[in-house]
Amino acid sequence: MLTLINGEPGDRIAAHDRGLHYGDGLFETISCVQGKPRWLSLHLARLCRGLARLQLPFSDVGIVEQEIDALAAGQSRCLIKLIITRGDATRRGYAPSGDEKPTRIVSCHPWPAAKDRNGAFRVGLSPVTLGRNPLLAGLKHLNRLEQVLAQQRMTPDLDEVLMIDATGALISGSMSNVFTVNPPYLLTPALDHTGVEGVMRQLVLQSATACGLTARVGPMTPAGLAQAQELFVTNIRLGVQPVTWFEGQAFPDQPFAARLQRHIDATWC
Amino acid sequence: MLTLINGEPGDRIAAHDRGLHYGDGLFETISCVQGKPRWLSLHLARLCRGLARLQLPFSDVGIVEQEIDALAAGQSRCLIKLIITRGDATRRGYAPSGDEKPTRIVSCHPWPAAKDRNGAFRVGLSPVTLGRNPLLAGLKHLNRLEQVLAQQRMTPDLDEVLMIDATGALISGSMSNVFTVNPPYLLTPALDHTGVEGVMRQLVLQSATACGLTARVGPMTPAGLAQAQELFVTNIRLGVQPVTWFEGQAFPDQPFAARLQRHIDATWC
Repeated sequence: MLTLINGEPGDRIAAHDRGLHYGDGLFETISCVQGKPRWLSLHLARLCRGLARLQLPFSDVGIVEQEIDALAAGQSRCLIKLIITRGDATRRGYAPSGDEKPTRIVSCHPWPAAKDRNGAFRVGLSPVTLGRNPLLAGLKHLNRLEQVLAQQRMTPDLDEVLMIDATGALISGSMSNVFTVNPPYLLTPALDHTGVEGVMRQLVLQSATACGLTARVGPMTPAGLAQAQELFVTNIRLGVQPVTWFEGQAFPDQPFAARLQRHIDATWC
Repeated sequence: MLTLINGEPGDRIAAHDRGLHYGDGLFETISCVQGKPRWLSLHLARLCRGLARLQLPFSDVGIVEQEIDALAAGQSRCLIKLIITRGDATRRGYAPSGDEKPTRIVSCHPWPAAKDRNGAFRVGLSPVTLGRNPLLAGLKHLNRLEQVLAQQRMTPDLDEVLMIDATGALISGSMSNVFTVNPPYLLTPALDHTGVEGVMRQLVLQSATACGLTARVGPMTPAGLAQAQELFVTNIRLGVQPVTWFEGQAFPDQPFAARLQRHIDATWC
């Protein structure tokens, strides 16, 4: 695995980095195909929204773009992970001094092998809930213990778990966003209080009209999924992934999920 | 600043540590006086509760104790920070593999100089709220963005800010626990849904009876502080710190706070 740390090949960072001490930073996971990162401008736009929200003064987005391009070149298919932290934490305490120098880590990972389940994708409901914080909602920040605990508690027969927040509202999967289809409506949870605004979620929402659907972003509950004709999860690695089974309920036929995937592949690749 | 990483002096850790990628770990900040760590057994007991809750298989607590003793020796007064992470993250994804080797970082920091404010300690109410998650409540884990954001938004005239959770309940300061006194009652918020169970909070609760107070742990609100005779915050560095001003309200006289501090110093030092 090749890793660039502040532009230099390496595999170590300062032990007193605020990314480690407080999770004070952001990340992106970027799909690369045929030597090129896909939807890089959407990833960098989300990164910039996060930097602004955390008041994290990182301005080398152009350099990051060059480094990602360099790592992707020559790879038929890989994932690139980008981490930006606020940098040095040798001055103790939560308050940033304001003159930290951010740390950037760009690393290239092999595309993970998909589990072979004969097309099945089984999803459960996690006992781990998501805390609500509007200041952090939507961001891909480094505080991810809730997701770690959710996946730690997943049974081996499952491919993903859906998560509710502290009020019982359905929010997302542990590593994905979630959608239902009841024609003509495409529905996904609002992420004003918690959750991550995925790049693939954004692409699905932008594709709805072209695929004959009306996108709605609003409240959802796990119980409400019983009425769904289609149920799918999305992330940059899985794309639009139909859920074949959710807590005892089967979803045998998902034509809109397939149509959305085809539209995204045809339009943005 | 001397730092031991897995027992060896150093200042770098692996860039692919789960502590950095997900905040998947715990920390302790230990006060050391005259070459000795104070209340180390309470710190290590909280660490062990956190390890169990995160299912983080770290068993070298005896070695940590030796390392802390070694770093404290010869220092008249210092703070030692201990971080335990789940270790290697080269296998991508939130799910722990179960065979990670935890990373331990023990570092010695100079005792921070107190701000000179002629005995004043001014506290505000933070606009940053705390998300609720019972699985993480009470732990001193590495997901601390809410505290970073709270301190980032503190105006320079303040020494600390109190924080409410997503339901409006008063929980703690950004770096401290909070108490009120209305004789005979000593009151501090329950931390079943969010917040950190501080070692100094535990010492204050254990000292209540000896200081003529009846300890109660239960719901509190910022509005309720207007009725308090005394208001103080606690952490390992500040001890029992009387609040002299909270959002326009003055607390000129705090005899119980002083009595609790004397009792803790006399009993456990």
